[in-house]
Amino acid sequence: MSITLDQAEKLSEAAKSKAKQIGVPMNIAIVDEGANLVSFHRMDNAWLGSVDISIRKAKTARYFDMNSGEIGKLSQPGGPLYNIEHSNGGLISFPGGVLLKDGSGKIIGAIGVSGGSVEQDHDVASAGVAAL
Amino acid sequence: MSITLDQAEKLSEAAKSKAKQIGVPMNIAIVDEGANLVSFHRMDNAWLGSVDISIRKAKTARYFDMNSGEIGKLSQPGGPLYNIEHSNGGLISFPGGVLLKDGSGKIIGAIGVSGGSVEQDHDVASAGVAAL
Amino acid sequence: MSITLDQAEKLSEAAKSKAKQIGVPMNIAIVDEGANLVSFHRMDNAWLGSVDISIRKAKTARYFDMNSGEIGKLSQPGGPLYNIEHSNGGLISFPGGVLLKDGSGKIIGAIGVSGGSVEQDHDVASAGVAAL
Amino acid sequence: MSITLDQAEKLSEAAKSKAKQIGVPMNIAIVDEGANLVSFHRMDNAWLGSVDISIRKAKTARYFDMNSGEIGKLSQPGGPLYNIEHSNGGLISFPGGVLLKDGSGKIIGAIGVSGGSVEQDHDVASAGVAAL
Repeated sequence: MSITLDQAEKLSEAAKSKAKQIGVPMNIAIVDEGANLVSFHRMDNAWLGSVDISIRKAKTARYFDMNSGEIGKLSQPGGPLYNIEHSNGGLISFPGGVLLKDGSGKIIGAIGVSGGSVEQDHDVASAGVAAL
Repeated sequence: MSITLDQAEKLSEAAKSKAKQIGVPMNIAIVDEGANLVSFHRMDNAWLGSVDISIRKAKTARYFDMNSGEIGKLSQPGGPLYNIEHSNGGLISFPGGVLLKDGSGKIIGAIGVSGGSVEQDHDVASAGVAAL
Repeated sequence: MSITLDQAEKLSEAAKSKAKQIGVPMNIAIVDEGANLVSFHRMDNAWLGSVDISIRKAKTARYFDMNSGEIGKLSQPGGPLYNIEHSNGGLISFPGGVLLKDGSGKIIGAIGVSGGSVEQDHDVASAGVAAL
Repeated sequence: MSITLDQAEKLSEAAKSKAKQIGVPMNIAIVDEGANLVSFHRMDNAWLGSVDISIRKAKTARYFDMNSGEIGKLSQPGGPLYNIEHSNGGLISFPGGVLLKDGSGKIIGAIGVSGGSVEQDHDVASAGVAAL
């Protein structure tokens, strides 16, 4: 089972609530099991450049079945995955992309958030995940 | 004034209702005054290839301030805008992209719908516009 | 359920047999439910340009849940989907891409074949499907 | 002489066996003398993002006639090939891409593997090479 639009809407709502709470307008993207876009929301006044980044964060997480920031730890100069970002038409390897799993632990998609610091992005994505 | 996320959500909801009514799952994209994505929704079982098409329809409408289908009338072989689809990273010039205007007639964005016949796509987009 | 690699191998083998039978070396691509590549085979001396085309045919079929040639009927000059090929990074809308369904009719992926005439491509793809 | 599909299939089979042995599902791509794709296999549950990476590793190895990881040693900040990954539509310069040579030492293609750690990727690619 892949994530449904209803589930994606619930997650996005939770992420938006968190974003409002911390006062940072965010871009929120959700992809399904196949890494295809299910939903996207750009809050008013959120960064335009983060439309693309939030979508790539969600895809990056699903592409490698780990949070996007984990990739970045390995892709630094001298690291084992240096410049992996050049694959797949462009990855985003800093935090803000988080995997989505169902109750049994099966991966059903991923959420990507961009618009603030990477810590804020990750927090807002995590608030979305918590609504699953 | 550009379209807000709240307005985009209202429009998308109206478009989804129309899509459910005619029984065709749709992809629904909304861009703002700057042709930047504001929101996107893929209904369950809607075509995967229409993610990209719905977004391009919305952008095409705003790029030229006319419904996407109007471009297609001019881009045919022998027409004045023959193969304009090659510009802007790829345009979609058939119906389903509709301009969004505020009460005074000012353009505030566009909606793009893809998932059925072009008539169905245009009808669902128009249902969204009617909710403005 | 998406197509497995074992299934994809069986289908590719059947497609290759058909290609040998008609004496035309082919490129054979199979994508899963999410339109992601599962397997690819280029027979010796098959056209190099058909690597990309076979993959795009498979993706096109899954993107719109119909055989690739059906899109081409609608994308001609004056047709309702004129120039849809500009979407999704490039579609291939002539025959050779065929949907894959399981016993219950659920779509589990698609096969794309390129290397001969479009009739030959479609026949070889169909031979693959018949092995499901 | 370039690698044949039959040879590529034998190599892929050996690589898959190694992948199963170490318990990591892999993406396995093989390109010919001309750096054009000959075969590709994604094992069930292998990373989706590694479809592209395995193909790029194989191409990178053949583009420069050395294993992909050798490029990465030279492409680091301050190194002689800094950011060479921007060329050719995107290179992958970490291990997992290995050259294929015939009995006389002539290059006949390359294999690229992605799905685990770079050490695992390289080991699985090497298991493929050993089957030549």
